[in-house]
Amino acid sequence: MRFGNALMVQANQLAKYTEDPPRVTRRFLTAQHKQAGEYLIELMREAGMTAGFDALGNVVGRYQVEDQNAPIMMTGSHMDSVRNAGRYDGLFGILTAIACVKNLRDRARQLPYTLEIAGFGDEEGVRFGAALICSRAMAGTFDPAWLNQTDDDGITMRQALCDFGGSPDGWGSLDRRGGNVVAYVESHIEQGPVLLNESLPVGVVTAIAGTTRMRVRVTGLAGHAGTVPMGSRQDALTAASEMVLFVERHCETHNGLVGTVGKLTVLPGAINVIPQDVELTIDVRSGDDMLREEAVRAFDTSLREIARRRRVAVDIVPFYSANAAPCDASLQNAFAAAITAHGIPLRRLPSGAGHDAMVFPAVCPIAMLFVRCGNNGISHHPDETMTAEDAEIATSVLLHFFEHFEPGR
Amino acid sequence: MRFGNALMVQANQLAKYTEDPPRVTRRFLTAQHKQAGEYLIELMREAGMTAGFDALGNVVGRYQVEDQNAPIMMTGSHMDSVRNAGRYDGLFGILTAIACVKNLRDRARQLPYTLEIAGFGDEEGVRFGAALICSRAMAGTFDPAWLNQTDDDGITMRQALCDFGGSPDGWGSLDRRGGNVVAYVESHIEQGPVLLNESLPVGVVTAIAGTTRMRVRVTGLAGHAGTVPMGSRQDALTAASEMVLFVERHCETHNGLVGTVGKLTVLPGAINVIPQDVELTIDVRSGDDMLREEAVRAFDTSLREIARRRRVAVDIVPFYSANAAPCDASLQNAFAAAITAHGIPLRRLPSGAGHDAMVFPAVCPIAMLFVRCGNNGISHHPDETMTAEDAEIATSVLLHFFEHFEPGR
Repeated sequence: MRFGNALMVQANQLAKYTEDPPRVTRRFLTAQHKQAGEYLIELMREAGMTAGFDALGNVVGRYQVEDQNAPIMMTGSHMDSVRNAGRYDGLFGILTAIACVKNLRDRARQLPYTLEIAGFGDEEGVRFGAALICSRAMAGTFDPAWLNQTDDDGITMRQALCDFGGSPDGWGSLDRRGGNVVAYVESHIEQGPVLLNESLPVGVVTAIAGTTRMRVRVTGLAGHAGTVPMGSRQDALTAASEMVLFVERHCETHNGLVGTVGKLTVLPGAINVIPQDVELTIDVRSGDDMLREEAVRAFDTSLREIARRRRVAVDIVPFYSANAAPCDASLQNAFAAAITAHGIPLRRLPSGAGHDAMVFPAVCPIAMLFVRCGNNGISHHPDETMTAEDAEIATSVLLHFFEHFEPGR
Repeated sequence: MRFGNALMVQANQLAKYTEDPPRVTRRFLTAQHKQAGEYLIELMREAGMTAGFDALGNVVGRYQVEDQNAPIMMTGSHMDSVRNAGRYDGLFGILTAIACVKNLRDRARQLPYTLEIAGFGDEEGVRFGAALICSRAMAGTFDPAWLNQTDDDGITMRQALCDFGGSPDGWGSLDRRGGNVVAYVESHIEQGPVLLNESLPVGVVTAIAGTTRMRVRVTGLAGHAGTVPMGSRQDALTAASEMVLFVERHCETHNGLVGTVGKLTVLPGAINVIPQDVELTIDVRSGDDMLREEAVRAFDTSLREIARRRRVAVDIVPFYSANAAPCDASLQNAFAAAITAHGIPLRRLPSGAGHDAMVFPAVCPIAMLFVRCGNNGISHHPDETMTAEDAEIATSVLLHFFEHFEPGR
């Protein structure tokens, strides 16, 4: 095996850079982000790349050709994680690309373009509310207002960046638009069961689903759990529960849509007090932008109707939205050729999850390679698995893609 | 006005002993519990009583008659609060009794019994899960296992008692059973809208509702919010939402029952992750013990059915239960006579809320006086109100009761 076993060792090592061992949690701009980045920089340098942190804490490595004006191919993925995460989500896309470069260097193989590998500091958006913070900086869609957003401890992103050793005001310099980048490609664990169910190690992504995220605040009236008759209550939690079930039912009955309430908090949160304030989030996705926009409107209408009927107030704020991102046909075909060259049946599939790739159409054409996810496709969970055999095949396919890509054709 | 204005001033002063100003939150064994207790001890001494903290942090004052073997009448209420509480719940029952004693002393009026006023350190049960901790010690039903229960910061009750200056192992000495206590009476804000709706300042309580509290843990499976199809999910929060609505619906359709889910937490609690673990509490109450026990069985059956259908695990633990406590007929009549003597129409009503009084039937007969609660009967909330006029009347009625009570009759 040329790549698979080494990649497993590296993924296991990176899983040790976590905020809450034995779980894997690595949020943007934490000490563990720093440790993981330093480990990746070391791997990049060993593979013959120049590498370092940029202003926002991204790791960037370059396998540079002599011509300073040569076209650039970008690849990579994110190094942050959700809470209690798996170990391949994001990081595999960085490691597999480094393994390709190391192989090219060992064979003294030159490419007709500079290959740049990015390890993005934030994609999941766990710490500061906004997601894809780092790839958006590279795509020229960074919002400087994010610098003033705070984490659960009240620390602003600006402060966290300073503590990390970054440069909050350097975000503008990361913009890759107009910088001769000809493609952004990303290899990623599927995080779903499609390839697993069809016994395929890899597949080509057709499009990345669009996402809308909403914050919903429900305000009722606290009261003593023993003395307020059921009919006189303005219970924020029973209202919120009805809203949670509406989101579920709407998505169950509209094919191609998934919707999730992932966060929900209750105040005052005492056993014997009727809940007054509930705050929850909705994440809704679809490869079909119309279907998603219809769902957002249905949520708005029905949640307000539930609130009115239950005499509670509701505040609904869509705070993040990204359209579906189609993958470039020509790059898809190049990945398809690489897969076919390995004797593997070709499977094209959409991505239900968002990925860093989805912001890069502002810079260049994009494409993605999906790698089989074990355990029924479980991800964002310690049970997320990838086999060394699949890592081997996926890296070999990516290497084939890199070696056969001809800029300008 | 003899009492009302002074009582308002005292209640406002006590509201300043809070953990999170401008809100009122005063949990058992906090620095603010200590400050409130010291203030009450000072008031008691000014009223001619001996007073101090006992082993569990209760404030106890005595208006002693010369005969050391004289019967004892107990009165008082609790000085802890829920989070973001009102300022009359509990404390009014202590203040109104001190005002009575001060009046008796000023008039050099002797009683044929010793009057003991208790300010209980814990009734709400906010900090250590168990409720009525302090009154249960006096009623001889303290569970020493509670000493090892922890608060949200992992501090045991034993440790907190030591830090407070109490004596964790002194709980046994507080037992009042066999100590010649002939009655326990408690004046309390109604915390509901009955007296308000009938334009009455006070009423006599017939019985205190029984309560069962349950802890419910729902365990599903985390997954990526974008990649797991709706039909394949094991979402702990959508299951919990259905459970919350079942509790509400069951109590709405069974007259005489109230049920509340006051706490609910979600893990991992990220926007883009399907919830894996939900923990919630149920508080169910009724003046009818059979009705409450039926509800507990219905919750157990239906919550398990919901979990089974949704392929999540559920763990249901009833961790606290107290039967309804009827008030003594003769003491009720004595309060009724005091009210009638003031020219106020007599209203008897049950208490939906639990009170310290409910544990004292193990010691002696009990009775309660309810005082009108403004703002639609809102309590456990900053909007809880009582007028100086009602405080005046309630104190005058209580004083009448004390002056006319003849032990042994």
